[in-house]
Formats: sequence, C-alpha cells, structure tokens
Amino acid sequence: MDEETADELRDLRQSIDNVDAALIHILAERFRFTQKVGRLKARAGLPLSDKSRESEQIERLTALAHEAHLDPVFAEKFLNFIVAEVIRHHEKIANESDR
Amino acid sequence: MDEETADELRDLRQSIDNVDAALIHILAERFRFTQKVGRLKARAGLPLSDKSRESEQIERLTALAHEAHLDPVFAEKFLNFIVAEVIRHHEKIANESDR
Repeated sequence: MDEETADELRDLRQSIDNVDAALIHILAERFRFTQKVGRLKARAGLPLSDKSRESEQIERLTALAHEAHLDPVFAEKFLNFIVAEVIRHHEKIANESDR
Repeated sequence: MDEETADELRDLRQSIDNVDAALIHILAERFRFTQKVGRLKARAGLPLSDKSRESEQIERLTALAHEAHLDPVFAEKFLNFIVAEVIRHHEKIANESDR
C-alpha cells in the first residue's frame, strides 16, 4: 500500500470510528427508552411484541432510508436486528417482574 | 390498556421514532465512508476484509458500550452485523471494478 492510500484509509477510518461512537451512544439511549416500554408493558400486562407497531416502524424507516440513500432492505434488516434485542430485554423484564 | 399507560407508551414511542431517524441518517453517513473505503481498496487491490482492524473496532466499541451502559456483547453483535453489510458492499464495488 503506498503512503497516499494509507493516509486516505486512516482518514476514512477515523471518520468511521467517530460515527461508531455516535451510533453506540444513540443505541444506548434507544435501549433506555425501550427498557421503559418493557417495564410499562410488564406492569400493564401488555404483549411484549406488537406486530402493528413494528409494521409502522418498518414503513417509516424504509421511507427515511430512501431519503438518506440508505438501502431500504438494509434498514428493515437493521430494525429487525434491534427489535430482536428489544424483545429479549422485554422478556427479561417480564420474567423479573413475575418473580 | 388505561389512558395513562397509552399516553406513556405513545410518548416513549415518539422518542424511539426520533432516535431511529437519527440512527438511519448516521448509518447512511457511515456507509458513505465505507463505500469510499471499498473504492480505495478496490483501486489499491487491498483485501476486502481486515481482521486486525475489526478486532481493534470490537475492542474500542465494547469499551464505549461499557461507558454508555450498553451490553458489550450486543455492541459486538451490532458491529458484526454492520461489517457483514460493508463487506457485501465492498464485494459489489470490487466486482464492478473488475469488469
């Protein structure tokens, strides 16, 4: 790898690292909100998963992805990935409140 | 569901929707950087995947996750999920530049 390429790669990776730090912190905040939803659902005896809410989210996120020139199929996969983790948290909260 | 619970749930979901819009736009920006990395790698004939870079990223992100009270195991799964998509993009770019 020549020096110019190495510099350019280092520069891009610095930006990616900054973006990742932002993503981690925003995800942490998202899970704080969904943990609250989990506790609310456990308290009110609501089902942990809500397919109509998930459909609305997918519709909204794919529209946003389109605007942002992000692959809408990826945006949907991303939401499913996050929601699977959220449901896992909700189950944990529901089990703890059952005790 | 009583009215108070419904209001609280609606309020939390509004925050989650705002956070998701931020995530989608930040992810779009991340892929713009990784597309540049992909073109650079294709031009310089560099391998599409870089295990030592990925190890550094995992180490860094799990430390950040710990600080942000995000499950470090999830942070690692998240990075792997994103990197899989990035490699898919890199392959596409490499194939296009082979033609």
